[in-house]
Amino acid sequence: MSDLKTAALDYHAQPRPGKLSVELTKPTATARDLALAYSPGVAEPVREIARDPELAYRYTGKGNLVAVISDGTAILGLGDLGPLASKPVMEGKGVLFKRFAGIDVFDIEVEAESPQAFIDTVRRISITFGGINLEDIKAPECFEIERTLIEQCDIPVFHDDQHGTAIVTAAGMLNALEIAGKTLPEARIVCLGAGAAAISCMKLLVSMGAKIENIFMIDRKGVIHAGRDDLNQYKAVFASETDKRTLQDALTGADVFVGLSGANLLSPDDLKLMADNPIIFACSNPDPEIKPELAREARPDVIMATGRSDYPNQVNNVLGFPFIFRGALDVRATRINEEMKIAAALALRDLAKLPVPQEVCDAYGGMALSFGREYIIPKPMDPRLITEVCDAVAKAALESGVATLPYPKNYPLKSVDDVFNG
Amino acid sequence: MSDLKTAALDYHAQPRPGKLSVELTKPTATARDLALAYSPGVAEPVREIARDPELAYRYTGKGNLVAVISDGTAILGLGDLGPLASKPVMEGKGVLFKRFAGIDVFDIEVEAESPQAFIDTVRRISITFGGINLEDIKAPECFEIERTLIEQCDIPVFHDDQHGTAIVTAAGMLNALEIAGKTLPEARIVCLGAGAAAISCMKLLVSMGAKIENIFMIDRKGVIHAGRDDLNQYKAVFASETDKRTLQDALTGADVFVGLSGANLLSPDDLKLMADNPIIFACSNPDPEIKPELAREARPDVIMATGRSDYPNQVNNVLGFPFIFRGALDVRATRINEEMKIAAALALRDLAKLPVPQEVCDAYGGMALSFGREYIIPKPMDPRLITEVCDAVAKAALESGVATLPYPKNYPLKSVDDVFNG
Repeated sequence: MSDLKTAALDYHAQPRPGKLSVELTKPTATARDLALAYSPGVAEPVREIARDPELAYRYTGKGNLVAVISDGTAILGLGDLGPLASKPVMEGKGVLFKRFAGIDVFDIEVEAESPQAFIDTVRRISITFGGINLEDIKAPECFEIERTLIEQCDIPVFHDDQHGTAIVTAAGMLNALEIAGKTLPEARIVCLGAGAAAISCMKLLVSMGAKIENIFMIDRKGVIHAGRDDLNQYKAVFASETDKRTLQDALTGADVFVGLSGANLLSPDDLKLMADNPIIFACSNPDPEIKPELAREARPDVIMATGRSDYPNQVNNVLGFPFIFRGALDVRATRINEEMKIAAALALRDLAKLPVPQEVCDAYGGMALSFGREYIIPKPMDPRLITEVCDAVAKAALESGVATLPYPKNYPLKSVDDVFNG
Repeated sequence: MSDLKTAALDYHAQPRPGKLSVELTKPTATARDLALAYSPGVAEPVREIARDPELAYRYTGKGNLVAVISDGTAILGLGDLGPLASKPVMEGKGVLFKRFAGIDVFDIEVEAESPQAFIDTVRRISITFGGINLEDIKAPECFEIERTLIEQCDIPVFHDDQHGTAIVTAAGMLNALEIAGKTLPEARIVCLGAGAAAISCMKLLVSMGAKIENIFMIDRKGVIHAGRDDLNQYKAVFASETDKRTLQDALTGADVFVGLSGANLLSPDDLKLMADNPIIFACSNPDPEIKPELAREARPDVIMATGRSDYPNQVNNVLGFPFIFRGALDVRATRINEEMKIAAALALRDLAKLPVPQEVCDAYGGMALSFGREYIIPKPMDPRLITEVCDAVAKAALESGVATLPYPKNYPLKSVDDVFNG
């Protein structure tokens, strides 16, 4: 076995299976304590919540509890391995929610015979939670599932594979364009891949100013154009009036390449077709569409991001979802809307431009981090993420009218410890 | 507000809402740790589980995770207040599972439009868990819900309001009968109440040797007898060929009264109708069918249990469910069968006969506890429960062929700490 495989399996198995436990937050030493925690004392909060459902946020863990829910149809890059096999990923997502934003997570794996069965199941249990993070659900089903659940639930429902990726990509993209001396409205963008993340990425870029006529999306059959009759409604949005048919056609003169497809699908020769200071987001995991060293050899002026932690500029969803949910929960937003997603992207963009504290550099082996080609996206271990991103998301929720609580008194939060103890 | 009300609401609200949190059990300090917990390391346990589903028990928390699930249709003694209002109770159940048996609990509140919708929902999420504890679901729907889920799930499904109450009642009953110089096969039993707990109690007593023809069950319309045409299939099991019609008819000469009905439904005069050493289990909560002081005044030879912690002989489900699930999980039982329930009841019966350690007496204000009329049921704070009851349940699972793991090496467990660290 490889070192990583051995280490990962040991990590999951020892000294006890899994990565999460449920712990008590109130005293339970005496019979009196138990009489408050359970019968007869527990009847009091029950009566209060029956009288006023809002009080569930005062007397139960609902307000800090997010469900991470999957049907296991699109696990990581591994495909449809079923709900049980997705459990380590969903628990892992719970680890990240807790570690970065103090949010409690129940991972729920759903064996659903149809998208409708999945929707019904999630809707019926949604009252348990303060928010729902959908995960690893295949396209195109994921679009309808998310849309329906957003409509039917009064808590935020967020498919992170779509929007988390989109938000972090957008943040890095804005900085890359700035360094290249270009702007989003002018940028010619090629998106290789037409799955959930790709469609959501391109939609968010359009929300933020990209021109849809400057975007060429490419699926397994080539450029998505108006002459094709094999497009689902989600891809059809991006069908362009063009005579470009191949990746190479699309790349010629393009400013930006976003890869959400597969390993090694972009060649060094392809890069040579692009405009100056080409921006390459090669996000396929674990192997990018082109290796950074090959890209740089072909185009020394490249500005490059990947999904990997061992290269500069990692597009990592953990920069988004913990803080987006934290901000949403703190003002009890009823949904995570486009304004909140854009606010998160802009907060990440701005944070990358600030001087980086030494402790963050130290956390990455003393790496020198300052805004530029090798640092266009903040690092996950940056403790300023929780103040900057949560704050921006909470403000956007309030300003766009989806928050139901006033702005938290102690905002911005100082550290994750404040969240844990808040 | 009463003192209890204030204390209970404060307990639930301060310093943070609710009673549970989800915590990390593995290191997450470094980027390397996170690469094992999530991408790319997490792909390894995903692949292993896809290859062999059993490995979910090695690499995830499934094997120590129980869902406590309710639709809120029969919350405590309060009735149908809906799923959201049930959340403090379900979280409280989670507190008890953890406190007494080291079991992690996700509480799930289900908004179901029908019993079938509830069943479908629970079945579809069941793969997440190692066991399912159904709670506070009204009769008669609860019977069909539990039966169907037991059939459809390959993990234990247990409706505690039925079986937990039955198991602890049976344990106390056997000891009360011994003290009264009587036996279960000979005992004439009156059961006031015909809901989920009552029916399950009487069924378990029959499994353990009571004669069904010696049992008189009474609902709001009087004695359940063969001449009635208003009985559902669950009550009909207990319809007897009798000319008894009233509670008083049934009590005349009876050895045992089990009350799972409502406050003050048994009068001192009623007790005077019963045989010598009458056994009264007045389990209505918070107010019993008759107050112990009134019962004793009417019948100084009474042997009495209630559902309350402030009288001797509390019939408390916490003596059962944590240890029953612990035993079932430890041998990975596919269900909790009749043999395991009986084993739990007998283990509780036997434990009450053993000398009580001073620490247990101290936990109850220095109360002198020794087997007799005032001590026929163990106390919840007795640390021997986890060794005795788990051990008995695990053994019964193995012997009855529903266990899928061999007997745990270190059984019997020495303390709850072993469970946490095991």
